[in-house]
Amino acid sequence: MSEPITAVVASNQARPGRKLQHVVESQQFTVPLLMELFDRSRGMERIVARGGSLDYQHRIMATLFYAPSTRTRLSFEAAMQRLGGRVLSTEQARAFSSEMEGEQVEDSIRIIGSYSDVIVIRHHEEGGACRAAQVSPVPVINAGDGDGGQHPTQALLDLYTIHRQRPLNGLSVALIGELDKGRTARSLAYLLAKFERVKMFFVSPPETQMKPDILAYLEQHGVQYEQETNLDRVVGEVDVVYQTRIRPERLCDRASLKRYAIDSSVLRRMKSDAIILHPLPRTVELDKSVDDDPRALYFQQAKNGLYVRMALLTMLLERE
Amino acid sequence: MSEPITAVVASNQARPGRKLQHVVESQQFTVPLLMELFDRSRGMERIVARGGSLDYQHRIMATLFYAPSTRTRLSFEAAMQRLGGRVLSTEQARAFSSEMEGEQVEDSIRIIGSYSDVIVIRHHEEGGACRAAQVSPVPVINAGDGDGGQHPTQALLDLYTIHRQRPLNGLSVALIGELDKGRTARSLAYLLAKFERVKMFFVSPPETQMKPDILAYLEQHGVQYEQETNLDRVVGEVDVVYQTRIRPERLCDRASLKRYAIDSSVLRRMKSDAIILHPLPRTVELDKSVDDDPRALYFQQAKNGLYVRMALLTMLLERE
Amino acid sequence: MSEPITAVVASNQARPGRKLQHVVESQQFTVPLLMELFDRSRGMERIVARGGSLDYQHRIMATLFYAPSTRTRLSFEAAMQRLGGRVLSTEQARAFSSEMEGEQVEDSIRIIGSYSDVIVIRHHEEGGACRAAQVSPVPVINAGDGDGGQHPTQALLDLYTIHRQRPLNGLSVALIGELDKGRTARSLAYLLAKFERVKMFFVSPPETQMKPDILAYLEQHGVQYEQETNLDRVVGEVDVVYQTRIRPERLCDRASLKRYAIDSSVLRRMKSDAIILHPLPRTVELDKSVDDDPRALYFQQAKNGLYVRMALLTMLLERE
Repeated sequence: MSEPITAVVASNQARPGRKLQHVVESQQFTVPLLMELFDRSRGMERIVARGGSLDYQHRIMATLFYAPSTRTRLSFEAAMQRLGGRVLSTEQARAFSSEMEGEQVEDSIRIIGSYSDVIVIRHHEEGGACRAAQVSPVPVINAGDGDGGQHPTQALLDLYTIHRQRPLNGLSVALIGELDKGRTARSLAYLLAKFERVKMFFVSPPETQMKPDILAYLEQHGVQYEQETNLDRVVGEVDVVYQTRIRPERLCDRASLKRYAIDSSVLRRMKSDAIILHPLPRTVELDKSVDDDPRALYFQQAKNGLYVRMALLTMLLERE
Repeated sequence: MSEPITAVVASNQARPGRKLQHVVESQQFTVPLLMELFDRSRGMERIVARGGSLDYQHRIMATLFYAPSTRTRLSFEAAMQRLGGRVLSTEQARAFSSEMEGEQVEDSIRIIGSYSDVIVIRHHEEGGACRAAQVSPVPVINAGDGDGGQHPTQALLDLYTIHRQRPLNGLSVALIGELDKGRTARSLAYLLAKFERVKMFFVSPPETQMKPDILAYLEQHGVQYEQETNLDRVVGEVDVVYQTRIRPERLCDRASLKRYAIDSSVLRRMKSDAIILHPLPRTVELDKSVDDDPRALYFQQAKNGLYVRMALLTMLLERE
Repeated sequence: MSEPITAVVASNQARPGRKLQHVVESQQFTVPLLMELFDRSRGMERIVARGGSLDYQHRIMATLFYAPSTRTRLSFEAAMQRLGGRVLSTEQARAFSSEMEGEQVEDSIRIIGSYSDVIVIRHHEEGGACRAAQVSPVPVINAGDGDGGQHPTQALLDLYTIHRQRPLNGLSVALIGELDKGRTARSLAYLLAKFERVKMFFVSPPETQMKPDILAYLEQHGVQYEQETNLDRVVGEVDVVYQTRIRPERLCDRASLKRYAIDSSVLRRMKSDAIILHPLPRTVELDKSVDDDPRALYFQQAKNGLYVRMALLTMLLERE
């Protein structure tokens, strides 16, 4: 998945010379582009505080969700609406397409791209967003593809939330959970790798470890990482605790769940200035008792998604 | 269910001093608040006749429906749009949340409340809207909770429809149908109890009678009521015939259905100035032949929902 | 189905003297009305190129889809939004109404018609849109009814696409596919029959031939047609190749599918100035290798749907 985006960008004849044509995978973002995005995101915080804008009232965003995700979809739709824009929405496009076979996502994108100015797609197959970008007449944003694909805008808002708290260079981060199927952890690892002296700890049950493609990417780029099977051993030294979903039914030994869950005993061992993030929704891996701790930033993180997605939309929709 | 709202209102730190913080159950409305709402609703009739307003074009309402209800959802969405506002919509949020467990509605509300200015929730569990209000950073409106919970905005539009026809004090009302699971009849009974010299007849098959919590509430507030199992015995003396759904499969003796259904023979026994209401949708309990009778106001009642919900939104969204 | 529309139009007390009250079936369009619609559609191309309008920001369109159809629904919603209007949307209204019985679409239409200014309905039963139009207080547009009903706006955009390429009089057209269940081919045949010296070839497997009602209509109006079971025999002489879906499982002899599918060998036999249309989505009957041929206009056809639906909405929503 690290090559196709170049081809996609190159093939996008309709929008030559753009910094950002589509958002398919997090690797495509350079550090300067990230910094521009984050500056714009700060600006969006101010615009929302004033009630939003009407600048985009002639622009239409389509959300094409082949798998439902209420929060991600509404976050994008709120972002477009806070810019004054309009929304075409599908909560469950797959119900419709189930009768169809094969290549049909390309036809849908061509058609919906002729009605709208930008398409946000969640696809149940890995690579679905990339296929969409290859044929779309308008910018495509990947809102999650497959189980083991990416979710780049989630990683962008994760990184923005960290950036608002501390410098990104020299960061020590624990990424925890079912990392083999963790789109958000995968996308965030790619982004963190772009910064200096970052160290990542991949903390997961042995049966759900981070896949080799990410590890190879990190090695190739000289990024330090360690794999762990016990949060206890690293939680005291990291700046960021990035928790993700753990489904107990995926563990051979369910009792081992407590080695990965965050609760008040984990809070006691964390650094006083560390932060806790979680892409949400959560189940058992993040206890509600953590919510009141000032280091728990996951609701702020969700809110930051609004600003980052607004900023991203302005970068994609800008006219030359 | 008559106490928690106080706690909810008290806990809503974000909006101190508001007359109306959330709309969770109909008891929370005082008579002066009802009269203010109804005055505003009249104003909305005039605004809609002129084509609506654009005053709320920077405000976003989210409809979070864990159980689908096309009419209620569209009524709220039309209300927000006639005010010029914007809408985030979920037709069937439960499809998404089904993979999750337990407490998850609270997290959803916290997140969606960070994107929107007001949340309309229909929840499949009794008390779902109250739980939502307890954590929401923005006003929450209960659009129906559980089978035996409430549906306060339906009761408000029912009462508004009666109010537009005759004085609310001294009213005699028959509430008919499956009253044990009748959210709308329950909510309306609470509201009617606030007026002087009201008399209610609860007309329902023995197996679906009004639950003791409502009866206890009425006794405690000195409101007259009677339980009946035959519409015939009361239809000639009431001012309002409030029919609700009856599912024949819930009756032991299906032939008894005709004791509760409204048809032309019931029309003949009704007072000439009585009115017929029904929250709709209907099945067999309200015959289509009734539609042309001038006393049949249920389509007007549905339309009044637009005005009452517009008025309610203005009360909740007003800035200090 | 060729008579009821008169009754519908006559019964629409609310909007006397309109050229266009509802859009239920394609027969209701006269040639002058079609020409007015196409002129307006050209105007809409220019408006969209300039970014759309805000003229309809006080008007609300409801899309009531009892069967999901993402593309058709989004095409209508984009049309309304490019006019500046607002949308109430149901992706899958049947999920809600499934608990109800019988006549319930009429009640829904009456209620939703009291919230909105125009209703777009797709109904799973033939005649569903006609029933809706008979009770609606606002204009109704049929976006497809039943398997063997109509889909008039699809036929309008098909005809507009042809009209943009060549004169409609004297046209030779092959309509191909499962014609017995082909709503779009049925609706288009009615429209083509209104022009001079048109010849239609109905090319379909013997088990899925065009139904007698259409054939009788053509005979009655003196329109030339032929039934064929092999595309090869006619493809060299037609101006328009109108392909529609073929489900291989409906064919007794699946090998016969190649007699109806369009691929590069069909392209070689087509006239150099003929055009290929398809309402989409497609499966096996239209090969992707055809997409790059300049005669393949089906993506333009889909885009034209936006313009034609915008034009239609302006005709229905115009105030006297």
